[in-house]
Amino acid sequence: MYSSANTIWVLVAAALVFFMQAGFAMVETGFTRAKNAGNIIMKNLMDFSLGTPIYWLLGFGIMFGGSGALIGSFDPMVRGDYSSVTPEGVPLMAFLIFQTVFCATAATIVSGAMAERTKFSAYCIYSMVISAVVYPVSGHWIWGGGWLSQLGFHDFAGSTAVHMVGGVAALVGAKILGPRIGKYDAKGKPKAIPGHSLTLGALGVFILWFCWFGFNGGSTVSATGDDVLASMGSIFVTTNMAAAVASIATMCVTWIRYKKPDVSMTLNGSLAGLVGVTAGADVVSPLGAAIIGLISGIVIVFAVELFDKVLKIDDPVGAISVHGVCGALGTILTGLFDTENGLLYGGGIDLLLVQITGVLAVAAWVTVTMIIVFLAIKFTIGLRVSQEEEIDGLDIHEHGLVSAYADFMPAVEMPSEAAAAAADSGLKAATKSLSESVPVTYIKEVKETKEAKEYKFTKIEIITRPSKFEALKAAMNAIEVTGMTVTHVLGCGVQKGATEYYRGVPVEMNLLPKVQVEIVVSKVPVDLVINEARKALYTGKIGDGKIFVYDVENVVKVRTGETGYDALQGEE
Amino acid sequence: MYSSANTIWVLVAAALVFFMQAGFAMVETGFTRAKNAGNIIMKNLMDFSLGTPIYWLLGFGIMFGGSGALIGSFDPMVRGDYSSVTPEGVPLMAFLIFQTVFCATAATIVSGAMAERTKFSAYCIYSMVISAVVYPVSGHWIWGGGWLSQLGFHDFAGSTAVHMVGGVAALVGAKILGPRIGKYDAKGKPKAIPGHSLTLGALGVFILWFCWFGFNGGSTVSATGDDVLASMGSIFVTTNMAAAVASIATMCVTWIRYKKPDVSMTLNGSLAGLVGVTAGADVVSPLGAAIIGLISGIVIVFAVELFDKVLKIDDPVGAISVHGVCGALGTILTGLFDTENGLLYGGGIDLLLVQITGVLAVAAWVTVTMIIVFLAIKFTIGLRVSQEEEIDGLDIHEHGLVSAYADFMPAVEMPSEAAAAAADSGLKAATKSLSESVPVTYIKEVKETKEAKEYKFTKIEIITRPSKFEALKAAMNAIEVTGMTVTHVLGCGVQKGATEYYRGVPVEMNLLPKVQVEIVVSKVPVDLVINEARKALYTGKIGDGKIFVYDVENVVKVRTGETGYDALQGEE
Amino acid sequence: MYSSANTIWVLVAAALVFFMQAGFAMVETGFTRAKNAGNIIMKNLMDFSLGTPIYWLLGFGIMFGGSGALIGSFDPMVRGDYSSVTPEGVPLMAFLIFQTVFCATAATIVSGAMAERTKFSAYCIYSMVISAVVYPVSGHWIWGGGWLSQLGFHDFAGSTAVHMVGGVAALVGAKILGPRIGKYDAKGKPKAIPGHSLTLGALGVFILWFCWFGFNGGSTVSATGDDVLASMGSIFVTTNMAAAVASIATMCVTWIRYKKPDVSMTLNGSLAGLVGVTAGADVVSPLGAAIIGLISGIVIVFAVELFDKVLKIDDPVGAISVHGVCGALGTILTGLFDTENGLLYGGGIDLLLVQITGVLAVAAWVTVTMIIVFLAIKFTIGLRVSQEEEIDGLDIHEHGLVSAYADFMPAVEMPSEAAAAAADSGLKAATKSLSESVPVTYIKEVKETKEAKEYKFTKIEIITRPSKFEALKAAMNAIEVTGMTVTHVLGCGVQKGATEYYRGVPVEMNLLPKVQVEIVVSKVPVDLVINEARKALYTGKIGDGKIFVYDVENVVKVRTGETGYDALQGEE
Repeated sequence: MYSSANTIWVLVAAALVFFMQAGFAMVETGFTRAKNAGNIIMKNLMDFSLGTPIYWLLGFGIMFGGSGALIGSFDPMVRGDYSSVTPEGVPLMAFLIFQTVFCATAATIVSGAMAERTKFSAYCIYSMVISAVVYPVSGHWIWGGGWLSQLGFHDFAGSTAVHMVGGVAALVGAKILGPRIGKYDAKGKPKAIPGHSLTLGALGVFILWFCWFGFNGGSTVSATGDDVLASMGSIFVTTNMAAAVASIATMCVTWIRYKKPDVSMTLNGSLAGLVGVTAGADVVSPLGAAIIGLISGIVIVFAVELFDKVLKIDDPVGAISVHGVCGALGTILTGLFDTENGLLYGGGIDLLLVQITGVLAVAAWVTVTMIIVFLAIKFTIGLRVSQEEEIDGLDIHEHGLVSAYADFMPAVEMPSEAAAAAADSGLKAATKSLSESVPVTYIKEVKETKEAKEYKFTKIEIITRPSKFEALKAAMNAIEVTGMTVTHVLGCGVQKGATEYYRGVPVEMNLLPKVQVEIVVSKVPVDLVINEARKALYTGKIGDGKIFVYDVENVVKVRTGETGYDALQGEE
Repeated sequence: MYSSANTIWVLVAAALVFFMQAGFAMVETGFTRAKNAGNIIMKNLMDFSLGTPIYWLLGFGIMFGGSGALIGSFDPMVRGDYSSVTPEGVPLMAFLIFQTVFCATAATIVSGAMAERTKFSAYCIYSMVISAVVYPVSGHWIWGGGWLSQLGFHDFAGSTAVHMVGGVAALVGAKILGPRIGKYDAKGKPKAIPGHSLTLGALGVFILWFCWFGFNGGSTVSATGDDVLASMGSIFVTTNMAAAVASIATMCVTWIRYKKPDVSMTLNGSLAGLVGVTAGADVVSPLGAAIIGLISGIVIVFAVELFDKVLKIDDPVGAISVHGVCGALGTILTGLFDTENGLLYGGGIDLLLVQITGVLAVAAWVTVTMIIVFLAIKFTIGLRVSQEEEIDGLDIHEHGLVSAYADFMPAVEMPSEAAAAAADSGLKAATKSLSESVPVTYIKEVKETKEAKEYKFTKIEIITRPSKFEALKAAMNAIEVTGMTVTHVLGCGVQKGATEYYRGVPVEMNLLPKVQVEIVVSKVPVDLVINEARKALYTGKIGDGKIFVYDVENVVKVRTGETGYDALQGEE
Repeated sequence: MYSSANTIWVLVAAALVFFMQAGFAMVETGFTRAKNAGNIIMKNLMDFSLGTPIYWLLGFGIMFGGSGALIGSFDPMVRGDYSSVTPEGVPLMAFLIFQTVFCATAATIVSGAMAERTKFSAYCIYSMVISAVVYPVSGHWIWGGGWLSQLGFHDFAGSTAVHMVGGVAALVGAKILGPRIGKYDAKGKPKAIPGHSLTLGALGVFILWFCWFGFNGGSTVSATGDDVLASMGSIFVTTNMAAAVASIATMCVTWIRYKKPDVSMTLNGSLAGLVGVTAGADVVSPLGAAIIGLISGIVIVFAVELFDKVLKIDDPVGAISVHGVCGALGTILTGLFDTENGLLYGGGIDLLLVQITGVLAVAAWVTVTMIIVFLAIKFTIGLRVSQEEEIDGLDIHEHGLVSAYADFMPAVEMPSEAAAAAADSGLKAATKSLSESVPVTYIKEVKETKEAKEYKFTKIEIITRPSKFEALKAAMNAIEVTGMTVTHVLGCGVQKGATEYYRGVPVEMNLLPKVQVEIVVSKVPVDLVINEARKALYTGKIGDGKIFVYDVENVVKVRTGETGYDALQGEE
């Protein structure tokens, strides 16, 4: 007898947990560099795609096929009898998909910490091993009837089973892999490597938060009975409360430590709260959840700094801290805040000790197996891309993808277009008529360079701060200089920008955005241009810019064919 | 006795309404400038994060804790007895989370209208006040058993209770704050300030539309009984119908008024329809919903223009018009289109009068309280950032974020990379072997400048329209000019671009995208290059461009060390 | 008697299927060019917005209003009696919204294949015809009690009814429309036209996969009874399995054929698997789904190549192959893999023959009607934009939208800002005090050009590969050249880049990203700069770059007013 309510609840939750893949993809892509965007997306897509059949062939059986203390059974394609483990009223296949998407979550966490330098083939392999063996074994201990569940270990929706497993695997991987080129200077000082789209990163966090209602809420794997229904509501409240308070906590800590509320760290803070509350979402009160969120939101900042600055383990998106540290933390805090068995609620120390035991045991299991896996890969096919590949970007070398944003800001029309257009008979005709319509005298005009000789033409090149451009333009218009060419350049000098922080690391900016304005004059005196430009640009602060003066031999206006002095007059 | 169906329905809806935060974040970020992207995201994240505990500590009690006409009660942490107000079969905690996400929606609306110039700390404060007091009090009147609900005011899912509250607060805030620098010229004429990603803005609208099925659909707070189930289906249809028809209506109006169907305004139109139908989604027919959508879609265009051009209140995303105007409108239209009590369905004028009363009362409440709140902030910590901060962007000043897209288009490799790479022993060895592999004679070659003197080298700099680049390249290849450097520049002249409209405001384009092609020649005659270039570029229209000629002293080819004439020959 | 479970299930699914619009919008926008982004979004928004009322006015009646073999009935605004076709326990309106969002899915598929060149008005018209007639008629055959359903045609969630209808319409449209300018060269060789954001494209695929759980899962239109509940679980598993295996298959095929795993094609592969399994999601086993996914994932690569290279039908996003080919394929494969009636499971050949019949009949219906529709449009209002509009982009011409990313990377401050700021009295005062604070002697200083004459100033312009910039900078710093201006340019030469593939087509890169570094020196010898630069840049490979030397007449430092030699010394 299946239950409509239970089945609907589990399946809706499964869909939401699947959608976390989109969240992870956006967070990991947004927080890393554009040159690796295609690679990260591909890794996210593939860990789920590989994990699905692998978990069906191996993982599910290991996790749920029997009640051994250490391991389930070998049951490829889920053909055994799981009636003793499937939740009441939930069909086996609904339970399978629910467990599959949880497994994939653990696998995908790893890609963030190892982003921007891991070989794609290596990634596919270790991702399969996690889904086939590593996650299912500890999952069996916790949720499949293994020794931890027999001890009374409480990990409701997977702070340990999912997040810490992913986080510890990420830690081992990032350590063995080593930091990205440029992450640490010769003295070991960390450098900020900002991502390419905080907006997409934030979208990812919102998606994850949304899906976490399925992740935690759905982990009741039932929606029948007053207790369960009340619990479902409570889980939504605690999950949301922990995330909200953690976001606030992280914001406050960064405001104090870095002088300003840090956006990307606060986004990590939201996730830290969600991971932290996942173990005890069903047994803590809203107040308990708020405190767990508070602690998680504070700890995440120091954890990120610890790995970044002290341990010098390069984790581009903070996955180790969010999932590993806060996963362990949340599991242990459940031993304190469980309203029935928690230490702070008079439930004694037993649960706390079991929670700590579970965290240590699972961490040890994942550490040992993943060291073996990563070293095996490292010494066979290799774990890391070459220096050249890393500097150029993984997109081009690993996937032959020129850029994930190839067309985003095309400097000119796509080469192929006009060429094909030119081959088009219609345009050819147009070209013919064009040569007829151009005044026949234009070649002669251009040759009349004596006129050009009579006047001196001068190019004045002004390099200054972008915010002053409009004032400059107004000043130039006032002295009847109407034509100018503006280019977005980078100025490199000894001038230092203000120190800003990105995830706790100072950002160096010795290439400052500047605007380069080119003006060619003949009638207007050069000195006048320079003086007026100076007046417009002067602030007295370093960075006001420089003006260069060049000789110009000649000028031609394309439309009229006028050369020299005349070419600089009139419209256009 | 809780109901599985009711609880599932309310919780799924709550998750969807939470996800509206992502929709708002994308709409508000996409419709504003890149330099403020991190700030807007942070505001969206924080209004929800702050709202969650605040509503739990204060708001929920004020809204639902008792049946006073004006206010509920003070019940921090929701510990009272709410059995009389919680919907049948729905656990209190499920109702709490459902109400929390609604409250946060009202709060987040404000950030759009006040974007790009509001202090982050000020935002946090007024956002808390809205969640703590302003929204809960009028919410109590409408949904908590207060005087409006006793009068029979019908605001099914919150056209007034949520959207108009947010919209009126946005209006008060935007008015007190004043327009963004550059929004109005000296004569008060509005200028278009286009956003930085209409694609993300559109994604946000799709997310909001999706989540509105939870917002309106879930507002039955029940999924049991034939009436409720039929109503749920009907609500989905009316919600969708109003949004669809409103989108069409807005598109048509912009097509007529601005000559072309305007994308960003049409996206506003979809939201206008959704807001408009929210008050009566349960009591109007599909046809009624279509008409409400039609009216909302037409009104939104004129409302946006009214605030922008006449009242000169700068609302970057149109939040006042979408949520404030269409929220009020939809509430009032319910008095006409309610199939039971609506004026047009023979239900008399009573409901219409009550609806108008409710709209006026709530608008007055929000206006008065928010004026007090914003003025209090203005005269204490300040409401608006400094001019410098606004021009540079809130990301850098408020959050120390160099750019939300720091890596997006790096002009060159991250500074830190190559430096660290150079420190790497492997590369050092490479550098050594390099100096050996460079032919020893290269220094000498470069010094042989007499060869350079024998030839004249000329740089021809062509500035023209991007679409002509390929034709130019083909023409140059035909005369054996193979090397050129192409830069994306902006040409500034008296040439006027065509007038285009962005949300009803003409877009000024006196900086036109141009391509700058630099060619250095020696063997190829300069006149030939100029004439062939002119042929390729000539259209006879203003904007064909200019050609400048410069003297070049010398040329060196890096790979071979050849200088002068030779450096310009052969491959590369 | 409506069922809570059934109604909730259908409505949640409807919301998810609606959200597919966001997925399609992101896929289609991401895979095409930035200059058409606003247009594609508008088309996606409008096909849904127009489809909603049209389907309500015409489509639904034609599809479900009666059990005729060929057609239902004319029932505007769904006022008839549908009790015989509405699923048990589901209110009519819930069924209507569910069918509406399915219809819109078919309509939106077309926009991808016809992207970047179709007139917006033409799009609106044919989109309405599809929703009004084309989709409902074949839909009636399959799901409305028409002849195919009577034959026993099995198309569970619409591989044929939705996807193939959309895909065939896309094929007809793309064929009649012709390829985009530049897609094929004069010899008919296809060119790659990469999209502008693979990240958004990938987000779209994740959204679609997520929503497919509603598309297929919800197609039970019931959630009651053990059979249905077991089936729901199974459908989630088969849907997910096919998508996952298809992604792997596509990745492997591209890895073999193009030497590297192709990101964008693999994303198509995921969708291919989803489309393929849609017809039989309820009747195939997980293993059967895996095989269907495998076949779909392989076929998609060759289908894309077939249309692109052999048939020369330009389909920017692969919609014809994904939805048309894999839709037909999945429907036919159901005749093999149906565990009850499939050929491979001993069910005989009957189902297979019916499936083939259905595919052919529907394909014929759509082909004929859509040829009529598209030709009628072509010879009246026109189907395709002008060449100029296509080259400039549809955003500016069709919608007056300068760019969907207008602000994304502003070269300079928005023109309007500083102008308005200047009009501000506060700034005016500042300007006054500025002219006083600038040393009065500065004009004189600038005029002292004799000093400038005494020294020679030289500009050295270095154009090289971006990855060498840091080495160059270090080398320049070492010889005390501290100031340089860096510009991101494109180098155009005979140098060929490595051949990379985008969706199976080689990408030509004759415009290579280069960095242009400008240095002006006086004291530092020019030869020294050139030699040190060469050492830093030399790799011996083509592409090392060139160095140009120019005479500079004068230099002015804005802040100090120093000219000539002095202006080049010291900080800044």
